[in-house]
This record gives sequence, structure tokens and C-alpha cells, in this order.
Amino acid sequence: MPLTPEQKAEIDRLRAETAPTRRATVPSLEEILYQAIPVLDHGFVRVIDYMGDDAAVVQAARVSYGKGTKRVSEDRGLIQYLMRHRHTTPFEMCEIKYHVKLPIFVARQWIRHRTANVNEYSARYSILDNEFYVPAPDQLAAQSQRNRQGRGEVLAGEEARRVLELLQDDAERAYRGYVEMLNEDESGRVLDEGRQGLARELARMNLSLNFYTQWYWKTDLHNLLNFLSLRADPHAQYEIRVYAEAMIDTVEKWVPMTAEAFRQYRLGGAQLSERGLAVVRRLIAGETVTQEESGMSKREWTELMETLGRSA
Amino acid sequence: MPLTPEQKAEIDRLRAETAPTRRATVPSLEEILYQAIPVLDHGFVRVIDYMGDDAAVVQAARVSYGKGTKRVSEDRGLIQYLMRHRHTTPFEMCEIKYHVKLPIFVARQWIRHRTANVNEYSARYSILDNEFYVPAPDQLAAQSQRNRQGRGEVLAGEEARRVLELLQDDAERAYRGYVEMLNEDESGRVLDEGRQGLARELARMNLSLNFYTQWYWKTDLHNLLNFLSLRADPHAQYEIRVYAEAMIDTVEKWVPMTAEAFRQYRLGGAQLSERGLAVVRRLIAGETVTQEESGMSKREWTELMETLGRSA
Amino acid sequence: MPLTPEQKAEIDRLRAETAPTRRATVPSLEEILYQAIPVLDHGFVRVIDYMGDDAAVVQAARVSYGKGTKRVSEDRGLIQYLMRHRHTTPFEMCEIKYHVKLPIFVARQWIRHRTANVNEYSARYSILDNEFYVPAPDQLAAQSQRNRQGRGEVLAGEEARRVLELLQDDAERAYRGYVEMLNEDESGRVLDEGRQGLARELARMNLSLNFYTQWYWKTDLHNLLNFLSLRADPHAQYEIRVYAEAMIDTVEKWVPMTAEAFRQYRLGGAQLSERGLAVVRRLIAGETVTQEESGMSKREWTELMETLGRSA
Amino acid sequence: MPLTPEQKAEIDRLRAETAPTRRATVPSLEEILYQAIPVLDHGFVRVIDYMGDDAAVVQAARVSYGKGTKRVSEDRGLIQYLMRHRHTTPFEMCEIKYHVKLPIFVARQWIRHRTANVNEYSARYSILDNEFYVPAPDQLAAQSQRNRQGRGEVLAGEEARRVLELLQDDAERAYRGYVEMLNEDESGRVLDEGRQGLARELARMNLSLNFYTQWYWKTDLHNLLNFLSLRADPHAQYEIRVYAEAMIDTVEKWVPMTAEAFRQYRLGGAQLSERGLAVVRRLIAGETVTQEESGMSKREWTELMETLGRSA
Repeated sequence: MPLTPEQKAEIDRLRAETAPTRRATVPSLEEILYQAIPVLDHGFVRVIDYMGDDAAVVQAARVSYGKGTKRVSEDRGLIQYLMRHRHTTPFEMCEIKYHVKLPIFVARQWIRHRTANVNEYSARYSILDNEFYVPAPDQLAAQSQRNRQGRGEVLAGEEARRVLELLQDDAERAYRGYVEMLNEDESGRVLDEGRQGLARELARMNLSLNFYTQWYWKTDLHNLLNFLSLRADPHAQYEIRVYAEAMIDTVEKWVPMTAEAFRQYRLGGAQLSERGLAVVRRLIAGETVTQEESGMSKREWTELMETLGRSA
Repeated sequence: MPLTPEQKAEIDRLRAETAPTRRATVPSLEEILYQAIPVLDHGFVRVIDYMGDDAAVVQAARVSYGKGTKRVSEDRGLIQYLMRHRHTTPFEMCEIKYHVKLPIFVARQWIRHRTANVNEYSARYSILDNEFYVPAPDQLAAQSQRNRQGRGEVLAGEEARRVLELLQDDAERAYRGYVEMLNEDESGRVLDEGRQGLARELARMNLSLNFYTQWYWKTDLHNLLNFLSLRADPHAQYEIRVYAEAMIDTVEKWVPMTAEAFRQYRLGGAQLSERGLAVVRRLIAGETVTQEESGMSKREWTELMETLGRSA
Repeated sequence: MPLTPEQKAEIDRLRAETAPTRRATVPSLEEILYQAIPVLDHGFVRVIDYMGDDAAVVQAARVSYGKGTKRVSEDRGLIQYLMRHRHTTPFEMCEIKYHVKLPIFVARQWIRHRTANVNEYSARYSILDNEFYVPAPDQLAAQSQRNRQGRGEVLAGEEARRVLELLQDDAERAYRGYVEMLNEDESGRVLDEGRQGLARELARMNLSLNFYTQWYWKTDLHNLLNFLSLRADPHAQYEIRVYAEAMIDTVEKWVPMTAEAFRQYRLGGAQLSERGLAVVRRLIAGETVTQEESGMSKREWTELMETLGRSA
Repeated sequence: MPLTPEQKAEIDRLRAETAPTRRATVPSLEEILYQAIPVLDHGFVRVIDYMGDDAAVVQAARVSYGKGTKRVSEDRGLIQYLMRHRHTTPFEMCEIKYHVKLPIFVARQWIRHRTANVNEYSARYSILDNEFYVPAPDQLAAQSQRNRQGRGEVLAGEEARRVLELLQDDAERAYRGYVEMLNEDESGRVLDEGRQGLARELARMNLSLNFYTQWYWKTDLHNLLNFLSLRADPHAQYEIRVYAEAMIDTVEKWVPMTAEAFRQYRLGGAQLSERGLAVVRRLIAGETVTQEESGMSKREWTELMETLGRSA
């Protein structure tokens, strides 16, 4: 369980208070506000704040004085039109803020999305908790043989046992070294009055990349969808994908029309190249096309055949 | 008056509705939400939405599970510390959205601030209103003789009269040409059934830069303060400065502690160069310093003496 | 002709000088460096500087100590792979700087691309030239009846004549008013010693949106391709599209492998929605599909049929 | 030594080749192009490419057809003026690209500067080298007692010895675990044919934050100076400060006038608050001012007295 009783109590306190507002409000997102959605073994995602709703997208597209929305079917159509034609700026008018707890190696991928605001827990200033990620047995994947950047079969037996043991032991040892160098434990208790303790900004370098960190992360809806389309993709590493999936659920509660358009035009669709489009036209015309004729590389051809639901 | 009765009614409708929210809420900003604050002869600024408050800055700086705020004096001290030491990221955790009506030449300066989201009224798609800016007589300034990019004395008499006449006549004529080319007036009525009407995306080019446009503009608190410190500066052009000043009032209602720190460390302070600091140290030591000794250019020396409240 | 003899001489001087460099150099782009490529009636695009080449994309993707390139066919394949899979960051490693002269209404669309660096000629500081855009007769399009944001047939006869006359006359009159208010002509000559002249930052507001401005505009290759794919699109306004097309030519001289991948995967391809992909699969299987069955709107269906080269 | 003989040879090859270019060229930066400047125990900074020079700043500020530069003294004055008045956009017209090798915990601070382009060596794709940072004995600082985010005295004797031992042993052990889980060593040799080896994207999480990574990092001159002013600051962590200092040297070779203005107006100067300015004015007038009267906190007062070179 990722939360201490004190943290839970703080969250409950926040959830118990409401105030009236004139702003756009989304009851289904309010329902889960501040709650920790568990991800991986010790991580979570919490929605902390939001601004705007589907109507705000419509309002911005129409630059209106009021809400700008008309009938539900028209708003839905407009949002689909905007998504289809890459009119991305109206989606930038909604904003969301998350509190995320995540392993450092996941944070390092995540931070590459630059159009976002971030405040991370500072290990220069504070002592990190003794919490690290160890994959569940069904995620203990071998190196893929086909894809240098992917996973293959799940490890089993003695090799799996040994990996888990190594990850666990090395992380525990890293934390022991961290605490000894700090001369201070998690609770701030000094271990040995005769020592000074290494500076926190130095001691932290002993921790491994599976230790958890946390941050506030805020972005607009357009950039969030970009993040999600890349990180919920099957090619993304599993450990970041599960965060993206948990966040897609929050997007569906927040802006259901936008979420629907996102699934329709981004997650569920496909991008065809010029050559790919030529192949599709010929297939529709009933012609037979081979990889050689297509001008495509083998890999690209395979990807296209998968997209079209055909065996390559 | 910049608003039509229909627009007023839409705004009143929005203001009449409230809903309960668990989010951070700022009553003094809610008080003016959606209202049009008049700026220049036909322009306005309206706060449309906001996210976060002073406590959200504190919360992000502390990466806390709850509000993260402690006693008022501690929060105030922390916000001043963050501002003083350029720890800018916690201020990015608050977001605000404005609806602004402004002359196109002001919009052209404004848009140079790139870290913001914008949706502008489209003159490719719709017909612009017949509203243009004409300076009030006390803003009819001559070209400055000292500063190639500034204003000098206010024009008077015949020259002033003629300038106002020209601005008024040329704008009216530009709009007449616009409507004639469109073959359609503001209300969408076709003028001459025998003509097709020029495409809107072309006809708009006949309008002059003092015509009003409008947009939704959204940014975070840090970038807003950057904008305000540059555009509320005495060197900024008057026509954008009045927008910045109206917006500073909204910031004071929204995040009073941050606004206070902003006045203290940005608007009210001064930046000294290495040479400037050396001069200050010598002056404090009771020495006499001349421009020649200072190593400064005449212009820089004058600026420093003004900062220090001394006649150069 | 957009350039004065003095400007031409400056450009010739720059072109005459070369220096040895250890940096990546692209002879075919050097060939046109600094030259003004004419666009519209008075505008141009000039490549002023560049950094990197196709090999720099490869080098960054491989994070290598040397050039990182292998055989031409491997580099070409890698660049296509990066483009296909949206691995955009290696393309950010190349940078290009243009000097552009363009009508203000085009500049207002262009500036919406925020991930770029801009320095615009200042009409607060200097006097603008008496140069404005008037469309060529074959670009004098009527408002489209089908698309509120597009062009229809070309105007002809009396209506065309009248539009050209209005555009010409109103722009000339706007410039006369500008000069009179400034009390100074293009060459800086004072018109009437008895007047002070209106501040430049005010007088400029009398000019219409078809007057030319100019700027230095610098961006990275990834963001340039985004700009080009949106602005070279048939839905973009003609007056910005011609700039995009002139710039695509410079990209082909600069990074031919990237330009080829761009044509293949961005300009020439198509994005299918989830519904669109389902239709394609059924058509390939030899089924008949109607708009009603597809779940698509009429407009979306028409777009899909056009993509597939079928009459809707 | 951070470079292998193969890497050295690649660098030498690059340095040996020159080509003629019409672009702005800076001989003093060319002199060190591609060379590795050592930083920390295994790190380096290499300038890989650059675009523009001091004259490009001037050219952009003047939006000129040619170089835009006049006499050296005028260019120098203009650059100082731009820096003093925060006219930052002309500095964005120059761009530089570095190849940096740095410990992961330093990379995590560095990446917070978002307005830059980055390509990092991928540990999903490749195996990381067995290289980690261990502080030199004179950098083995204790936690500061006054500043929760800073360093105090240097550790000595047994405590220092033990810290170095822990850092060394734990990193070595982490790497052994990494290699064992991968079932592959640095050179790609399989250790045990009977095992599959854990996926690289998972195994890397066992490494600690002092391991070295490397990246290509590209930014414009304005954002580089922002980075340098924050990271060369005495409050920055030593391990990133040494990179900033090495980079300041490269800036001085590249754009000496800009570097001079940067030292004068950013590194060497001081920011006074409104209260601070009031204190300075009174001190110059010969008055005595106490902290209590100043309205400042104790900490702020101390900082001001240090700035003014007075004992608090």
C-alpha cells in the first residue's frame, strides 16, 4: 500500500471539503479527485486539480462569450472534426494536474515530454523513502530477439528466481548504504553522534533507478493526449504504459467526448505512408500486391499487413 | 460599450450558475469571473477560468499529499523565498484563462509570448466587427526625440485634430471596402445578389491594424508574471500596458501572496550590473564616483542614477 | 522586385566570402545561401544559416562519437524508421534560419507556430516600406459555398476589377495617412517642420494587413516539418502555402533523405480513423460498405473515399 | 580517461576534415570542435556543432539583409543594451550542440531545462558502460547544518574512507547484478548459454544514479545562458556546476561579446528587491539602517549585506 495513515487522512480531509464555484465542473472527475489510483507495486496516480471540460474545447474553438456549446450532437461532431483535422489548439484550453509516484527509471522516460510543468520531490533536500520497484513475476521478460528495444518471453524457473533475488538484494543494500552515509534514517534519527553524515545531494547517488520518486505533473489536454498516445502504445515500456492506462481512465471521466475522439482518431486508427496508401488502393481494386512491388522494406510491409489484419 | 445585450445575457447566465467543487477555490476571483473589465475604447479582459491558488504553489514546492500549507506566515515566507531565488516551477502549477478583446497591433506584440495557449477569432471563417481603436486625445503622443522606440509630448491643436480625423476616416473606409468586397455586411446580409463576394480570408487584408480581434489566452502563473513584468513596464507601449495593468488586478484577487512577492521582487526592485554594484558599494562607503570612473556608458549611468534616486 | 540595389550588394558580399569549417556542411544548400527566393508579389524567403545535415539525424539517433553514419542505405532506412515511428527528437538536432518578407496577415498565421525563434522588423522603431500585397487575378477567389473557411471560384469581370481597385486604393490611402501622421516619409525626410509627427508605434496602426513585414525565423528540422505539413496542406490559405512550398525546396537541398521520408510518411500518406480502418479492411475483403454502415458522418465518409481514390 | 582509442580516432577523423562554408564561422570555437573537455572523473563536454556568432545577434536585432554589424564598439554596445533590457530574442538566433557524458543524477537536474533538444543513449536498446562517479576526496562534503539543500564541511578520516568504500562497492555490485541479469557483458558476450537474459529495459533499473549516461544536447544561446546562470551559481550542486563552468569557457570562445555582457549583467550583478533598493538608497544617503526597520527577514537581510560587501 503506497500511502501512510497520515497521507490517507490528508487526502480524506481534502475530499471532505467542497466549495461553490462558477467554473466549469465535472462531477465524474470530482468523484475521484485526490484519490490515489494504484500503479505498479508502490506507485500511484492522483488527479489533484483540473480546469475546463469538453465544453471548454468547444468554447475555445468558437471563441464565444458564453459556453459556446450547442446541441450535444453538434459539440461531439465539432470535437471529432478538430481531432481529425489536427486543430489542436482548442484542446490546449483544458488543463489537468496529477500527483504521481513512480520509479526513477520511469520518471526519466516521462520527463522527456517537455511541454508540462513538474515539481519533483527533492532528494537534495529530503530523505527518500525505502521503496523500490520489483517487477511482478509475469513481467519478468527476457530480452526480445527480434526487437532490440523490446521484451520477449517471460523468464521462468531458476533464472526468474535469481533475477528477483538480485533486484531485491541490491536495492536493499543500496538503501542501507544510503542511510549509513547520511548517518540518518528515514525518520530523521541520527545513527552515530560521532559522524557528520554525507550531504543528501551526494548520498542519493547510491540509490538505484528502481527507487520511487514522486512529482506534481501538470499539462494541457492536447499535450496529455500526445503523451498518452505514445506511452499507452504497445511499443512503450510496460512500466510507463500502466501509468498511461490509468490516466486514460481519468481522461474518460473528465472529457468523455474528447476521449472518444482520441480513441477513434489516435489510438484506434492507423497512419498510412504514400506507398502504404498505394498498396491499399490496389488491394481494394482486387489486385494482388507483393512486398517487392510495394517498394517497402520487409519490416514496413509486415507492419502494414498487421494493420490491415492480413497475414504477411 | 464593448458588449452586445446578447453577450451580456450569456455572461449573466454563466455567472448565475454555481456548482460544488473539491478543487481549490478563490472567492475573490470567483466574484469577478466572466465579467468584462473594460480596456481602451472597445477592448476588455475577462477571467474565464483558473486553476490553483497561493496554496497550490506551496503544495507543489513541498510535493505534499494534502494542501501542503502551514501557517500563513510560513507560506508567505516560502513564496517570497521562491520568488527571490528564481525557483519558478511551483508558480507554473497555477493556470488562468482570459478572454481578451484587443486591437490587432496589440495582439501582434502579445503573441510574442510563446508559452501560452491561444484561440483567436478567425477572420478566415467569420466576419470581423466594425470596431477599431482610436487613441484618446491624451494618448496622442509625438515620436520621442530621445528614444527611437518611445513617445514624446502629447500632440495638440490642429495636428492632433488631423491625426484623429485620419485614423477615423481611414478605418471607416477600410471597413467599407471590406464589406463591399465580401458583398456581405456584419449581420451576414448579402449586398448584391449579382456578385459572389471575395473569400473572407482575402477580404480581411483590407482592414487596418487598429481593428479589434479577440482570443482566449491561457497561461500558467509563472509565465503570466513574466508577461506582466515586461508589459506593465514603463517602456512597454501604452496600449498593451493597460491590458497588463488590468490583469495585475486580477492576479491580486487570485493569488495575493504571490502578487505581493511579485511587486516586491520583480516590479519594484532593480537589477544591478557588476559595474553598478561596484558603484553602489563605493557610494555607500561615502566615496564620490563619476560616470567616467564607473566604466559605464552615459545611458547606463543615467539609468543607474535614476534607480538610486539621484540626479545624474 | 523585392530587393533594393543596396540589399542585393549586401547579399552578394556575403555570398562572396567563404571560410573553412569543421562542421557538417551541405554544398547544395550553400549554393543558395542568402539568396532571395521570390514569393507572392513582393515577398521572399532566404536561407541565412543552417546547422546539421541528414548525418546529424543519424548521429543523434545513435548518440555516437563520430558521424554515426554507416552505409547510405542504412542511414536512409534509419531515417525512414524514425519518421514512421514518430521518433522525432533526432530531427530536432538540425536547425535552420530564414529571413522572410511576408504580408502581415500571413505573419499572423505563421507566428502561431510557437516552437521557433523570431525577430521581426520593428514598426515601433522604424518606418515600414510602402509595399503591400495585392493578389494576382487568378488568386482572386470568391468565398467557398461549401467550406466556410475556404475559397471557391475565381472572381471575374467587373467584380474582380473592383476588388483589385479597392485593395490598391485603400492600401495607398492607408500609407498616405501613415506618412502624413508620421510627418516623415520612407526616406526619413520631414514633411512639415511645423509639426511634431505622431509616434511610430501609433502611426503604424493605420496600415492594413496586406502590408509587408519581415523577420528572421529559426527553427529545428522537426518543428519545420510540422509547420510545412500544416502549411503546405491544400487546406492552408494559398498565401502561406506558397511560402511553405518554397521552403520545402530548401529542405530538399539541405536534408534530402529526411525530405524523402517526409514526403513518404507525412505529405503523401493518410491518417485512418478506427472506423476508417474497419471500412478499408472490409473493402479489401471485397465487401460493399455504405456510409450508413460505416458509422461515419457524411463529411468524414467523403474524405475517406477521396483518400482511397473512389468516388463517394 | 573517458575515451576509448576508437572514440579518439573517430574524433580525430572529424577534426581532420574541413570544408568551405558561406556561413558565419568562429575560428576560436572551430579550434576545439569535437574535442572532449574532461569533467568529473569520467565525464566530458564536447562542442559538436554551432550556428551563428556575435554578429548574428546584431543582425537579428537589426533584421538586416547583410551582416547588420557596424563598428565593433557599436555592436558591443548593442549587445550590452539587449542583455541589460532583457531583449532576449536576438540571442535565440544562435544555436549550439554539445555531446555530454554525465552521471545520471546530474542528468536528472539538467533535463529540467526544457527548452532544449536531447538525444540520450538508450539503455533500453544498448548496454551501459561500467563507469560511475565517485567524488574526489575534497568534494566529500557533509550535509550543511544551515542550508537543508547544501553542503557543509568536507568529511575526513574514517567517515570519508567509509563513504568512498560504500560508493565504490555498491556501484560495482550493482553493475555485477546488471550484467548477471542481462546474461551479457559490456562487450556483448553471452555469459551462460542456458539462460535467456533479462530485457535491457528492465535490467538497467539495478544501476545506481552515479552511473554515467551521455547525450546530445542542443539549445539556443539565450536558453544556454539561462541554464548557465542557474547552474554556474554557487547554490547549484557542485557536480553540475563543473559542467556549467566548462561550458562557459566554450561560450567565451564562441561569442565573446555576449559572454562579456553575460558576466556583466547576469553572473556578476545583483537583483535588489523593492525593500532592498530602499535600504541601498538610505545607506547611500549616509543613514544607518537595521534589519528590523528594513522590513526584511533575517535571511534576506543577510543576503543583502553580503551583496553589498558588508558584514551583516
